[in-house]
Amino acid sequence: MSIDEKIQQLKQKLMGTLNATSVSDDPDVLEKYAMDETSDLKGDPWLVVYAKCTRDVSITLSLCNTYKIPVIPRGAGTGVTGGAVPVSGGVVLSLEKMNKILEIDTENMIAVCQPGVITGQLQKEALQYGLMYPPDPASLDSCSLGGNVAEGAGGPRAVKYGTTKDYITGLEFVLPDGSILQHGGKFIKNATGYNLTGILIGSEGTLAVITKIYCKLIPAPPVTFDMLIPFQSLHDATSFVHTLLINRIRPAVIEFMEEDALTLAAQYLGEAMPHPQAHAHLLIQLDGDSYSEIEPLLNKILSLCPVDPDTILTAESPEQKDRLWKARRCIREAIHTKSPVFLAEDCSVPRSSIVPFLTGVKQALTPYGIQSIMFGHAGDGNIHIDVLKNNMPYDEFKALVPSLKKIIYTEAYKYGGTITGEHGTGFIRKDALKQFASSQELSLYKRLKKAFDPNGILNPHKIIDSD
Amino acid sequence: MSIDEKIQQLKQKLMGTLNATSVSDDPDVLEKYAMDETSDLKGDPWLVVYAKCTRDVSITLSLCNTYKIPVIPRGAGTGVTGGAVPVSGGVVLSLEKMNKILEIDTENMIAVCQPGVITGQLQKEALQYGLMYPPDPASLDSCSLGGNVAEGAGGPRAVKYGTTKDYITGLEFVLPDGSILQHGGKFIKNATGYNLTGILIGSEGTLAVITKIYCKLIPAPPVTFDMLIPFQSLHDATSFVHTLLINRIRPAVIEFMEEDALTLAAQYLGEAMPHPQAHAHLLIQLDGDSYSEIEPLLNKILSLCPVDPDTILTAESPEQKDRLWKARRCIREAIHTKSPVFLAEDCSVPRSSIVPFLTGVKQALTPYGIQSIMFGHAGDGNIHIDVLKNNMPYDEFKALVPSLKKIIYTEAYKYGGTITGEHGTGFIRKDALKQFASSQELSLYKRLKKAFDPNGILNPHKIIDSD
Repeated sequence: MSIDEKIQQLKQKLMGTLNATSVSDDPDVLEKYAMDETSDLKGDPWLVVYAKCTRDVSITLSLCNTYKIPVIPRGAGTGVTGGAVPVSGGVVLSLEKMNKILEIDTENMIAVCQPGVITGQLQKEALQYGLMYPPDPASLDSCSLGGNVAEGAGGPRAVKYGTTKDYITGLEFVLPDGSILQHGGKFIKNATGYNLTGILIGSEGTLAVITKIYCKLIPAPPVTFDMLIPFQSLHDATSFVHTLLINRIRPAVIEFMEEDALTLAAQYLGEAMPHPQAHAHLLIQLDGDSYSEIEPLLNKILSLCPVDPDTILTAESPEQKDRLWKARRCIREAIHTKSPVFLAEDCSVPRSSIVPFLTGVKQALTPYGIQSIMFGHAGDGNIHIDVLKNNMPYDEFKALVPSLKKIIYTEAYKYGGTITGEHGTGFIRKDALKQFASSQELSLYKRLKKAFDPNGILNPHKIIDSD
Repeated sequence: MSIDEKIQQLKQKLMGTLNATSVSDDPDVLEKYAMDETSDLKGDPWLVVYAKCTRDVSITLSLCNTYKIPVIPRGAGTGVTGGAVPVSGGVVLSLEKMNKILEIDTENMIAVCQPGVITGQLQKEALQYGLMYPPDPASLDSCSLGGNVAEGAGGPRAVKYGTTKDYITGLEFVLPDGSILQHGGKFIKNATGYNLTGILIGSEGTLAVITKIYCKLIPAPPVTFDMLIPFQSLHDATSFVHTLLINRIRPAVIEFMEEDALTLAAQYLGEAMPHPQAHAHLLIQLDGDSYSEIEPLLNKILSLCPVDPDTILTAESPEQKDRLWKARRCIREAIHTKSPVFLAEDCSVPRSSIVPFLTGVKQALTPYGIQSIMFGHAGDGNIHIDVLKNNMPYDEFKALVPSLKKIIYTEAYKYGGTITGEHGTGFIRKDALKQFASSQELSLYKRLKKAFDPNGILNPHKIIDSD
C-alpha cells in the first residue's frame, strides 16, 4: 500500500471512530500545525487529530501504530527545539482540547489536570485556594502543562522551587499500542516498580503520550517583592549572582538580562528603558509569609550589592510587578520580532561557573561580529543565549550555525555543564547530543526508546535519530 | 560448561584482573552476604567481589555478563525487601569499600560521593560547612548512599524536604556490558537526552550499578526543635496529622508511633516510657533560621493540638533530641529483637487518607489476633506496618503472610495509594506488584529492564520476574 493510501485509510478509520470534527486535513489547519515556536523550522503534517479524552489518544495511537504512521504529540506548540514539528510528516496529535483542571484537591494539595491545561491557568486556579504550582516558564500564559512535563520545563522560580520534575507525583499515559497506564497518583512517596514518571518527564513525546497529570501544589507565599538591579557590565551582574551563591542567599528568582535583552523588550513594549546606561540587569524576587520575613534577606542582599541602592527599581504593587515581569517574559518575542531567524540556546552549567561560562561564550562569539543576547536563569546556572541573524544573508547565517552551536556547547562542557537546561534536545539539538554524548549513552537511549515504542512511531527524529 | 566450572573460571579471571583480595568465596564471607536486613530471607552467593573503584565494577560486570552469571549489587545491606539478597545465587558485588566523599563543593552546594558512603557520614561532613543533605532514612548511621539511590529511600524529613530523588543531580553508572556512563553532574537543571538519573533512582540494582553520586545540599537550618506529643488513640494521633495538613502546617518531620512501637523501643533501650498511658505518639520537628522564626509555627501547632500541653515532651538540647530520636530510629531493631520473623510493610497513601487507611488496616487485621505495629512518616502518607510472628508457629505465620499482605495492599489501593513508599518492591513484593499492576505495566517494566540489561544478569528476580 502506498503511503497516501495508508493515510486515506487511516483518516477514514479515525473519522469513523473518533468524532469526525476531531480529524482534519484542511490545508490551513495543516499549515498551522507544521510549526511550533522554533525559529526557522517547518514540518509537513499529513493529518491533525484533536484528542478530547484519553480514549481518543488511545485509538489514534493504536491505529497509527498498526499503519506504522508517525504521531507527533503536541501541547500548545510553544516549544523552541522543534519537539512538536512533524519534520518527516505524520499525524499531529493535538492535546489542546484536553484542557480541563479535573480537580484541585486542597487537602492533599494535588491538582489533577489534563495535558492541555495552560500552565498559567493552573497557577491562577490554585491561587484561589492559596496554593501555588511553582514551575513558571516564561511562556506560562500560552504553554501547556503536558508540554511542560514532556520537556521537563523550568522557569525563573526554579532557583528556589525546582522545575516541573519536582512537582509531578503521577502520570496517566498512553503507549503507542494504545494501552493506557498510570504511574503514581495523589500520594507523594512512591517506590513501587520502576520510576516511569521520572523517565517520561523530559522525554519530549517520544516514549508515550501523557493524558493526565498529578501536580504537587504548595502553600502560596502571600508576599512577593521584586527588584531590578542595574549593573555596569555582564561580568558585574553575574559576579553578584556568584556573591549571592557563596553567601547562600536563595531568593525565589534571580533572572539575568543583558543590555540588549532589556532594550529589545522595552522597544517591543514601546516603553522607556529604566536605566539606559546599564549594560546588564538582575531581576530578583523574594517571597515569604510576610514583609517582616522577607526584610532580613532583602537587607542582606542590599548590603552585599555593589550598586547604588537608589538605582534599584523595586516593585510591590501588582501593577509594578506586572511591568517588570512583562519585560522579562517578552524577551524572546522581542528577539523574534527583530530577527525572525535566530539561534536559541539554553545551556546549563554549575552555578559557580556562570561568570567564566558567559564571558567565555561572549569572547568566543566576538570574532563573528554577530549579535548575541544573554538572559535567563542566572540563579540556577541556566542561561539563554540567543544569536540573531539580523541582516546577515540567510545562507551565510545557516552556514555559521554549526560553529556557533559548537562554541556554546563546548564552553558549557568545559565547565561541567550540558547542552540544555529546560528546552530539551528536540530536533534541533539531536546532532549536538550525538557529538557530546558517548556512543554507549546514545545506544542506551535507542534501546529505551524501543522499550516504549517498538515501531518508532512516536515523534521520530527527536532526541535521537530514528532508524 | 557446568555452572561450577563457569564460576571457577570467572573467579580466576576476576582474581587475575582485580586485586586478589577483592574476590572471596570464603564460606564465612558468603554466609555474611547471603542476607540483608529482610526478615526471614536468605540467598546463596557464589562469590563476593569488593569493588574499590569504577573500573573494578566495570570489569566485574563485563566478565559476569560474558559468563551470564547474575550480579547482585550491594551497598550496606540494610534493605528490608531483599534487594541485596542473592535469591538464586550469583556474584555479590559489594560497593562498601567505595566509601569516599570525593568532594563537597560548597560553592555549588553539591557533594560528589562514591556509592558506599554512609548517609549519616555525608550529613555530618556537610554540616561542617553549614550544609545539609536532607534524606534521612532511619538507618542513616549504617545505610549507604548508593543503596538509598537504588531504593529511592525516604525518611522522616521527607514531609518538608522530599526524598532521595529530589537531591540527586547526577550519577555515574556502569551497564552490564561494563560501559561507564554519566548522566547529569553539578548543574541543577538538565533537559539533555532522556532522564536516566530519574529512571535509575529506585531501580534497585536491576538496571545498572551506580558508582558516583552528585548530591544537592542545602543550607542547614541552624535551629531544630523536637516535641513528642502523646495521644489517647491511633485515631486521635492521625486525625491531628490531618488537622496539620488542612491548616497547611508543614513541620520538617511528623513521625507517628503506635503505643507498641514506642513500648518496644523503650524496652530495647532499657528506658522508661515517657507516657505509659498514651496509645499513640507524634514526634514533630520544626526547623528554621532562629527560634523566633520557629515560634509562630510552634504556637499554631499548640493552638490546634487537642492534648494537654503539659504532657508534650520537648527537646532542645542535643542530648534531649538524641533521646527522642534514638527511640524512633530503633523501632525496627526492637521489633526484630522481639520477633525475628515479621512482615514489614510501608504503603504510601494520599495524606488525607491516613486516618481511614490505618484504622481500616487495624480493623481488617483484628480477626487474625496477631500483633501489628504502625509507625513512620504520617506527615507524607507513608506508614510502616509491621506484623509480628511472635510465638505463632513458623509455618502458620508463613501461611498467613499472603493474606496479611493482601489486606494491607488492598486498603492502600482503596485510597488511591500504592504498595511501597520508600522500601522498594525488591524480592518480597514482586508478587504483589504482579497482582496490582496491569499486564501492560509489567510488560513495560520487562522491556525497560531489557533495554539496560539484555542478558538479565543484574539483580534477577527483583521488582519483576526474570525470564
